[in-house]
Amino acid sequence: MPFTDRITLYTAHFSPYAQRVRIALEEVHADYVIHEIDPHHQPDWYRGVSPLGKVPAITFGGPDVPPDEPSPESVKLFESLPLLEFFVDVFPEANLLPTDPILRAKARAFIAIYESYVNAHYKDVLLFHKPVDGLLQGLEKLQAALPPTGFAIEQWSTADIAVIPFLSRMLLYLDTGIGNYDEEGEKKLKDAFAGERFARLKQYVQEARERPSFKVSFVSDEYQVAIGRKVPALQRRPA
Amino acid sequence: MPFTDRITLYTAHFSPYAQRVRIALEEVHADYVIHEIDPHHQPDWYRGVSPLGKVPAITFGGPDVPPDEPSPESVKLFESLPLLEFFVDVFPEANLLPTDPILRAKARAFIAIYESYVNAHYKDVLLFHKPVDGLLQGLEKLQAALPPTGFAIEQWSTADIAVIPFLSRMLLYLDTGIGNYDEEGEKKLKDAFAGERFARLKQYVQEARERPSFKVSFVSDEYQVAIGRKVPALQRRPA
Ligand SMILES: N[C@@H](CCC(=O)N[C@@H](CS)C(=O)NCC(=O)O)C(=O)O
Ligand SMILES: N[C@@H](CCC(=O)N[C@@H](CS)C(=O)NCC(=O)O)C(=O)O
Repeated sequence: MPFTDRITLYTAHFSPYAQRVRIALEEVHADYVIHEIDPHHQPDWYRGVSPLGKVPAITFGGPDVPPDEPSPESVKLFESLPLLEFFVDVFPEANLLPTDPILRAKARAFIAIYESYVNAHYKDVLLFHKPVDGLLQGLEKLQAALPPTGFAIEQWSTADIAVIPFLSRMLLYLDTGIGNYDEEGEKKLKDAFAGERFARLKQYVQEARERPSFKVSFVSDEYQVAIGRKVPALQRRPA
Repeated sequence: MPFTDRITLYTAHFSPYAQRVRIALEEVHADYVIHEIDPHHQPDWYRGVSPLGKVPAITFGGPDVPPDEPSPESVKLFESLPLLEFFVDVFPEANLLPTDPILRAKARAFIAIYESYVNAHYKDVLLFHKPVDGLLQGLEKLQAALPPTGFAIEQWSTADIAVIPFLSRMLLYLDTGIGNYDEEGEKKLKDAFAGERFARLKQYVQEARERPSFKVSFVSDEYQVAIGRKVPALQRRPA
């Protein structure tokens, strides 16, 4: 039975977690509407959508209601990675994951490498002033998992949808000096990305940014940088 | 085409990540052999199985070789959560996830809640002497996601397989005073678990520990405690 319900996506344009879901909705050509939430000043009714108080979340089914008056009868789903798997399940024809179980396992392992060895360091470095070495090592593991050309499992998949919102913001923030690192950390990061060490990773990010689904779901570099400059925790620490 | 290859599981008996995969192999009645690896003293050949140098990993296919002489021709897969999804894909009749996509999303969201809001704190508290409050809040989120009775989505699923190896060790370590917390932290944890606050979570763990697949894959409380007492980072900090 094809999935035809209209989906409401609760999202924040700056959020990489939310962008994962928006990209997937575009790729599967879902019928959806967007409702922007400020995750740091959430309206009370939003707890009826996401008990965790996070974006992204989706609702569908139940009576036709405005997004800011969610019905108790609609289905509510949240957490970005389970949402990507949900779209794999309900839009099989969109081929977000291939049918071959070994390729599916490789796509999911690529996401797991990002989550286990990159994402925690990304926050530690950008927000919490931790040493940059763990991040660089994690990025090397991720880059080593890429094939010589193409996307994470060569064909475009949820693996790319999961990591690109983060990697694109990371490279942009490095380029524009956004991040709570000191001079030594910044130099290490800049040196690492200036040369050949992460050439394959940079090319991968560049190619993924060309996907129409990425472009539609990302306001602009300028917008993202302006947001980054306003977050106190993201500011460079003086020496 | 049913999956009939014999699987080699590279594992460490004490490891909760590895136990996830062992439980799943039992539940799907796979044909498998075990090869124990000491993750902290890995043989060189193990990089040919897991480029990340972690357990668990599996191999299958290729020529018939001893586990410590892995063939370049076999398929190698790693990362515990992608491995659970692999078994869902290749052993559909074992029903590790139901076919209903909404229930599948709920099972995966339960795992995501564990990974995002519990697992990092678990390590921070047990190994790194961080305050215990984040862990208790994460456990409350997880408990709130449980239905009134039964497993995470009522029927047994990958959601339970993913979290039970961790929750069972956590409760055991608390009971036996293993963990790098100080007196104040220990008192907070003990108080939280002594009363009704986590009654549902404790009952859930108790029921899951009764599964034959759990029992086969867990050596014993005594073994796990003996290992815990030997890890320097897990020792209680004097006041
Ligand atoms: N594990 C969640 C993380 C989502 C998340 O952290 N979203 C942020 C925005 S980027 C948020 O809503 N933060 C609000 C808060 O934590 O109060 C997922 O993958 O969906
Ligand atoms: N994200 C991995 C984590 C596996 C993991 O950390 N395994 C530990 C044993 S519990 C290990 O092999 N550690 C060896 C090392 O880090 O060198 C998974 O889910 O499979």
